[in-house]
Amino acid sequence: MSLVVQKYGGSSVADAESVKRVARRIVDTRKQGHDVCVVVSAMGDTTDDLIDLAEKVSPLPPARELDMLLTAGERISMAVLAMAIAALGQEARSFTGSQAGVITDGVHGKARIIDVTPGRIRAALDEGHIAIVAGFQGVSQDTKDITTLGRGGSDTTAVALAAALEADVCEIYTDVDGIFSADPRIVPSARQVKRITSEEMLEMAASGAKVLHLRCVEYARRFNVPVHVRSSFSHREGTWVTDKPVESTAQGAVVEQPIISGVAHDRSEAKITVVGVPDKPGKAAEIFQVVAAAEINLDMIVQNISQATSGLTDISFTLPKTDGQAAMNALNRAQESIGFESLRYDDQIGKVSLIGAGMRSHPGVSAQMFAALAEAGINIEMISTSEIRLSLVTRADRLDDAVRVIHTAFGLDSTDGEAVVYGGTGR
Amino acid sequence: MSLVVQKYGGSSVADAESVKRVARRIVDTRKQGHDVCVVVSAMGDTTDDLIDLAEKVSPLPPARELDMLLTAGERISMAVLAMAIAALGQEARSFTGSQAGVITDGVHGKARIIDVTPGRIRAALDEGHIAIVAGFQGVSQDTKDITTLGRGGSDTTAVALAAALEADVCEIYTDVDGIFSADPRIVPSARQVKRITSEEMLEMAASGAKVLHLRCVEYARRFNVPVHVRSSFSHREGTWVTDKPVESTAQGAVVEQPIISGVAHDRSEAKITVVGVPDKPGKAAEIFQVVAAAEINLDMIVQNISQATSGLTDISFTLPKTDGQAAMNALNRAQESIGFESLRYDDQIGKVSLIGAGMRSHPGVSAQMFAALAEAGINIEMISTSEIRLSLVTRADRLDDAVRVIHTAFGLDSTDGEAVVYGGTGR
Repeated sequence: MSLVVQKYGGSSVADAESVKRVARRIVDTRKQGHDVCVVVSAMGDTTDDLIDLAEKVSPLPPARELDMLLTAGERISMAVLAMAIAALGQEARSFTGSQAGVITDGVHGKARIIDVTPGRIRAALDEGHIAIVAGFQGVSQDTKDITTLGRGGSDTTAVALAAALEADVCEIYTDVDGIFSADPRIVPSARQVKRITSEEMLEMAASGAKVLHLRCVEYARRFNVPVHVRSSFSHREGTWVTDKPVESTAQGAVVEQPIISGVAHDRSEAKITVVGVPDKPGKAAEIFQVVAAAEINLDMIVQNISQATSGLTDISFTLPKTDGQAAMNALNRAQESIGFESLRYDDQIGKVSLIGAGMRSHPGVSAQMFAALAEAGINIEMISTSEIRLSLVTRADRLDDAVRVIHTAFGLDSTDGEAVVYGGTGR
Repeated sequence: MSLVVQKYGGSSVADAESVKRVARRIVDTRKQGHDVCVVVSAMGDTTDDLIDLAEKVSPLPPARELDMLLTAGERISMAVLAMAIAALGQEARSFTGSQAGVITDGVHGKARIIDVTPGRIRAALDEGHIAIVAGFQGVSQDTKDITTLGRGGSDTTAVALAAALEADVCEIYTDVDGIFSADPRIVPSARQVKRITSEEMLEMAASGAKVLHLRCVEYARRFNVPVHVRSSFSHREGTWVTDKPVESTAQGAVVEQPIISGVAHDRSEAKITVVGVPDKPGKAAEIFQVVAAAEINLDMIVQNISQATSGLTDISFTLPKTDGQAAMNALNRAQESIGFESLRYDDQIGKVSLIGAGMRSHPGVSAQMFAALAEAGINIEMISTSEIRLSLVTRADRLDDAVRVIHTAFGLDSTDGEAVVYGGTGR
């Protein structure tokens, strides 16, 4: 007998019928002899409907009250799910984030989990009940106000509870079969990844892969929680995100770890180029201090080689498009003090990333990637690397080609031609 | 500066526009220099919608989970109301029943308030905030589970908070102007009662008047909370339910207390007659023990005068129609042991009640009432009295006539011919 934490997103519990289907799945797991703790998101469009309602009464709803409002969504789904389980003859009890002991800081709308004290969940499990926990929400340590965790919050709740309960596995149910070697909408021959290390998954999530949210993967990595991403619409084995060897899978044996796990892409970034920066020590630091002061996270940075004749250089960096205007404003205000010539803003870029722990021991990866792109006539504008990731910026209109070319070049194309459906998880 | 508790029912916050209107009203009260604590019900049909959802997944939802589900309703309305108030430039903070310190027993669906510890509400008020509290809900003392208070629950929350906060007044906002001398749908000339004692209000509520729920009035009476029932659609003075002299009203002076405060009616009861009961000591007790064991509350009881020849008597009592089947079943099972001849069930009855503290010092009231009904040819089937109430059972199809006849006979008809709209409060 083991302890399983399962997380179901909003699309898995969109209506009464879906809730009943999920309830049957949970009861099946319980009947196999496992203790089951379930984390659930708000049903279907509930969160959007609540946000619409808030906007009708207030142009800028206070964050504390918005959190209070939105947490009604999971309250509804968790109670209804507990009822559906009870109707199948199993005992279930629902708990809010606060009741489940999800303690956070006080940053409404994107609170961070500080601690998880799941005494009531443990007690419910010990009594043989299925515990249902509201995802995405917690209670602030200082003010005891209700908080929400922001994007990917329910996944994070599930992993945090799995860690605190020392669960054997955290199953993240979604509407796709798991993690793929690339987005199947772009690469129809993408194949499902059977197993991926948390380090690789972190790089995937940070590089634009949407199935698991970065925070959830960070949490799983830190607390060594094995995560199993799988579809709530099938019983197929999904993708294991774990640093431990997987003991047995539906396929029977652990697949040998390939050099490259997958190709991720990201269309959400823009590029700013600061033109004509005096090539003196400290000038780059000044630029990035200005951007940091505006609370903007940069991604890739490139400093051009200085032209000796002018004593000037150019510095380019990428950042989320949503922060583009704020960064341009901040830099424009600092133009005189920094002394650069001008700014260029470019939102027609795309980023493609190759991720694989095998890169460490295979130094030829970057050369192979550049060659494949050159052959396809795709220009590389920026490069950044980590130990297990290689990211490139291309023109936005060549991004899909770049993903396909790289996917093929590293032998990732599936040969079974299976059609897959790809999408994101709920919050 | 005083402390005002205001309660708004579901019809007062049915949609975003209504919420904004209520928010303006609350802000006006705050701007007059009062501390304001607001208790709010779920918006419009939210509760019914949630019950429908529950019924879709479970034929008999567990009471604990139904409470968890339904409390989402007030969570939404209170957060949205707080946002609407913030949009008007005032600080507002919403609190669940649990956060507001509404401690109850563990009877889900109809929990009773054990204690109110409104430390967080007091702190919010002290900081100059408007406190918004979810009505109808609390947290059980023993299990810390979320509970609901059942019918009239939000009114009870408001009165209980007013008592714990030692508020100067508890304003119950509804869609009518206050308490009327009779239901204006039956008696168009019914007039608004300016002031009524809690004792009279208790008898009115127990006799079928629907504006205030019995439990709320009991609570107000026990803790001596002045209640002001008024319309959220006008600024007119409503009805004061208080045992203290009212110091000043919008009308300027306190109206002299009349003998009779009002005429209430009730169509929700049925009559059971146990025919041919052996006229021996203990037989009546046996019958009522059987009914009590089925957890049914009786209202009026009449034992006919025994017929000396047969040694048998008939016993009739009234009870809620909803309990009729259960009572008949319980009595049928006990027929042999009690030894009665047969049972008769009659759901075509109506009850009319005359209420007034002045009855105590005016012994002629019952004679005057009987005379008026006799003149109108209305037959009286059962009678029951308290110190300040006189209730009669008539045929259901003569009930409206009985209400009108009595209303006129005691000089309650209004002379200003004002049209009024009458309805119930929310939960």
